[in-house]
Amino acid sequence: DDMLEVAGLRFRSRLLVGTGKYRDFEETRRAIEASGAEIVTVAVRRVNITDPKQPMLVDHVDPKKYTYLPNTAFCYTADEAVRTLRLAREAGGWELVKLEVLGDHKTLYPDMLETLRAAEELIRDGFKVMVYCSDDPLMAKRLEDLGCVAIMPLAAPIGSGLGLQNPVNIRIIIEQSSVPVLVDAGVGTASDAALAMELGCDGVLMNTAIAHAKDPVMMAHAMRHGVEAGRLAYLAGRMPKKFYADPSSPLAGLI
Amino acid sequence: DDMLEVAGLRFRSRLLVGTGKYRDFEETRRAIEASGAEIVTVAVRRVNITDPKQPMLVDHVDPKKYTYLPNTAFCYTADEAVRTLRLAREAGGWELVKLEVLGDHKTLYPDMLETLRAAEELIRDGFKVMVYCSDDPLMAKRLEDLGCVAIMPLAAPIGSGLGLQNPVNIRIIIEQSSVPVLVDAGVGTASDAALAMELGCDGVLMNTAIAHAKDPVMMAHAMRHGVEAGRLAYLAGRMPKKFYADPSSPLAGLI
Amino acid sequence: DDMLEVAGLRFRSRLLVGTGKYRDFEETRRAIEASGAEIVTVAVRRVNITDPKQPMLVDHVDPKKYTYLPNTAFCYTADEAVRTLRLAREAGGWELVKLEVLGDHKTLYPDMLETLRAAEELIRDGFKVMVYCSDDPLMAKRLEDLGCVAIMPLAAPIGSGLGLQNPVNIRIIIEQSSVPVLVDAGVGTASDAALAMELGCDGVLMNTAIAHAKDPVMMAHAMRHGVEAGRLAYLAGRMPKKFYADPSSPLAGLI
Amino acid sequence: DDMLEVAGLRFRSRLLVGTGKYRDFEETRRAIEASGAEIVTVAVRRVNITDPKQPMLVDHVDPKKYTYLPNTAFCYTADEAVRTLRLAREAGGWELVKLEVLGDHKTLYPDMLETLRAAEELIRDGFKVMVYCSDDPLMAKRLEDLGCVAIMPLAAPIGSGLGLQNPVNIRIIIEQSSVPVLVDAGVGTASDAALAMELGCDGVLMNTAIAHAKDPVMMAHAMRHGVEAGRLAYLAGRMPKKFYADPSSPLAGLI
Repeated sequence: DDMLEVAGLRFRSRLLVGTGKYRDFEETRRAIEASGAEIVTVAVRRVNITDPKQPMLVDHVDPKKYTYLPNTAFCYTADEAVRTLRLAREAGGWELVKLEVLGDHKTLYPDMLETLRAAEELIRDGFKVMVYCSDDPLMAKRLEDLGCVAIMPLAAPIGSGLGLQNPVNIRIIIEQSSVPVLVDAGVGTASDAALAMELGCDGVLMNTAIAHAKDPVMMAHAMRHGVEAGRLAYLAGRMPKKFYADPSSPLAGLI
Repeated sequence: DDMLEVAGLRFRSRLLVGTGKYRDFEETRRAIEASGAEIVTVAVRRVNITDPKQPMLVDHVDPKKYTYLPNTAFCYTADEAVRTLRLAREAGGWELVKLEVLGDHKTLYPDMLETLRAAEELIRDGFKVMVYCSDDPLMAKRLEDLGCVAIMPLAAPIGSGLGLQNPVNIRIIIEQSSVPVLVDAGVGTASDAALAMELGCDGVLMNTAIAHAKDPVMMAHAMRHGVEAGRLAYLAGRMPKKFYADPSSPLAGLI
Repeated sequence: DDMLEVAGLRFRSRLLVGTGKYRDFEETRRAIEASGAEIVTVAVRRVNITDPKQPMLVDHVDPKKYTYLPNTAFCYTADEAVRTLRLAREAGGWELVKLEVLGDHKTLYPDMLETLRAAEELIRDGFKVMVYCSDDPLMAKRLEDLGCVAIMPLAAPIGSGLGLQNPVNIRIIIEQSSVPVLVDAGVGTASDAALAMELGCDGVLMNTAIAHAKDPVMMAHAMRHGVEAGRLAYLAGRMPKKFYADPSSPLAGLI
Repeated sequence: DDMLEVAGLRFRSRLLVGTGKYRDFEETRRAIEASGAEIVTVAVRRVNITDPKQPMLVDHVDPKKYTYLPNTAFCYTADEAVRTLRLAREAGGWELVKLEVLGDHKTLYPDMLETLRAAEELIRDGFKVMVYCSDDPLMAKRLEDLGCVAIMPLAAPIGSGLGLQNPVNIRIIIEQSSVPVLVDAGVGTASDAALAMELGCDGVLMNTAIAHAKDPVMMAHAMRHGVEAGRLAYLAGRMPKKFYADPSSPLAGLI
């Protein structure tokens, strides 16, 4: 069977979804259900997963049914990120985490120096780190060499919905990696997700594309199909591109 | 329910598939099944649907289960096309047909003058004509005004797998049409199909992209998801594209 | 020397420019000068070239220095177009003309049926017809077979500035044509013009991209360089695209 | 006047060219001349600029006429790069240099950690450092903060000719930088250069696109025009993109 394996765990779905930006926990729940995701990522700094006196995500999205993946959204230094995940581990026992250390408020691009630092410390500390990163293949390689369990390069700026900007870089990262590569951030619609998967990605993580669609639940459903479509097309092996029905007349050099 | 309506008939699937270019009828059958298609199109001039002494498609792809759509592939004049469909109607009673009149052997582009002529005659003769055409919006409008029941502009040259070349034209055709618009020809992989549907197409017809994939049955499955993904994303209404997480800093003029 | 030859005339510049949409004739003059164009096209129905009591384009753009190319902008039938060019010929003796017959006011796409009709009549009448057309290769071929002296497919809708939408079609037209092929309409900026020329076009015609730039005269200058850049790059023969510096590691299938 | 200013020096040309990969120094000379470049970059480790007993570049490309920009191509660590440039300074007195520290032999991507290290040391040592880098905006900002005099992100892998892969990143780097931003590596043809300049780059550096064209001298000439075209188009301010001639009918959401 074709399954996603991360850190020894196996998942049928290759679509990972965020839990923020929804109108309420009920919409979150319905969108996640429609997406078919088995891994949901949670911004420890924003989503209430510890204070039982407030409305809690866990009351809507069952942690027994879904793999919770705590993330460090809104952390701007390695220290903040490490501290945040330690708190999460104490609160919920989570060891599989998503690290992201942002560099500025405008672009939300990852700060790769701080990311490397945090990854190193977290891995030393026993965490299994899935890591949000730039699409620089050398940085991706460094993160893998440190021991990260999944490489998660951005497709485009977080929340932009621009779709995969640099397929060449993503493809190089896929070719060089022996851990799963998941595109994280920047996907805007279902064909974007399909395209990333057709390149050979092991999965896609998204939040805004679903939460900010006009109908988030329907878009979650679309994304489920998009990821599946791209994965199957990748495995099936697409037909070669040609310029003429008549193969003896190639439209040379146009590609 | 969201269904494709053509000529008064209703279909759950928006993926239409061809029946040529497979290794054998058995592979044809399996691919069609995996695609979820309810309409299969048949080149009357090539596929045996009338001579019971030869292997027959109908023995593998049940005409009671699938809507057969006879097409005029390999016809290069209006006369040939009209004659071909009349024979098909006599043989099988089919009135819903796909008209294509090709202009040359190299590009397999539709000859729009002959196509207009044939469409007119076929409609006068009682056929319900789905019509393969260029992506020229004015030609599409003429065909609709003649009474065609579906407009089927090419995404790219037949058999090229290049994907949608001119989304602007396709989009204009969609906006102006009150009959279904289906992209026909040129799709290469699942994200191409999703993209066409996200533009607002009512359906996609393909053959080579499935038949010439390394694993046609798996690709048929991929295409099923791709079309579904694109349709749902279109209905869900995608998030707007932005250049910065911080909306106060638009990346002006870059789009 | 590398020159553009149309209807037996030879031009050093491969950039043809329109004369409309400028603030005044003085700006028109300065932009044309900066563009280096030798052929200027004039909408006979809009630009005063016959009434000496009104401000006249010829007082600013010297017909001895520039080849005036009367066009049929704002004509929506073959009859209007033919009549318009006959009037122009009587007034100014012009035989080299640009035919365009528009199909609707919204997209300004050419009506190819009326265009074919008008081309036939004008050629019979002794005109040398450069013809604005869709990018349908079969229509382009028909126009060449009728005797048109240049084929001028659109890059994108008139006035849209979207740039070349369908390089595949333009390239097929170039390969099949023995008369010059010039992209007409849709160019938005200098790289668009360069790109069209790199495909092998013989020239580019534009109006809005220059006239509606913030600084039309500077943009005219940019376009001059863009066309020249594209032409030289085409003749020079570009390097092949590769995915890796190391040629033994092709990034297969990504193109 | 519109001039490129780097480290207090002013140049009319915004095209910088490499000196490697040519058949001989004579072709190098002719291509450089045709390009109009005023800055030529030299791989200190490969091009003979110090041993008068061997053929020397300086005998063909006059260092009085051109600004020589020594670079560290073929260096894979900060130490190698620093040592190489110190030798170059001793030999030729050059203080304005181009730093590149490559990460691997396959992609020739810059190793940003080593690049940061080398930049810091070179700047402390009095060099004026133009720096080849990834298109990660945060890395670009760090390099500027260290004191680099020009930021030179790659358009695509060195020698690939793929053209600008990620205009969003390049554009963000341009917006955030107060030193010149030049695209370095990956340009394949003249329109690529024009496009980079239209985004607002201050210049473009290239080598293979010229040296490996079929006719390098003619391509050098094309590139000169391409860079000029893009610069002027950027300054002129392009027309807005529209989908319909009729502005009241926007083709919503298609961009």
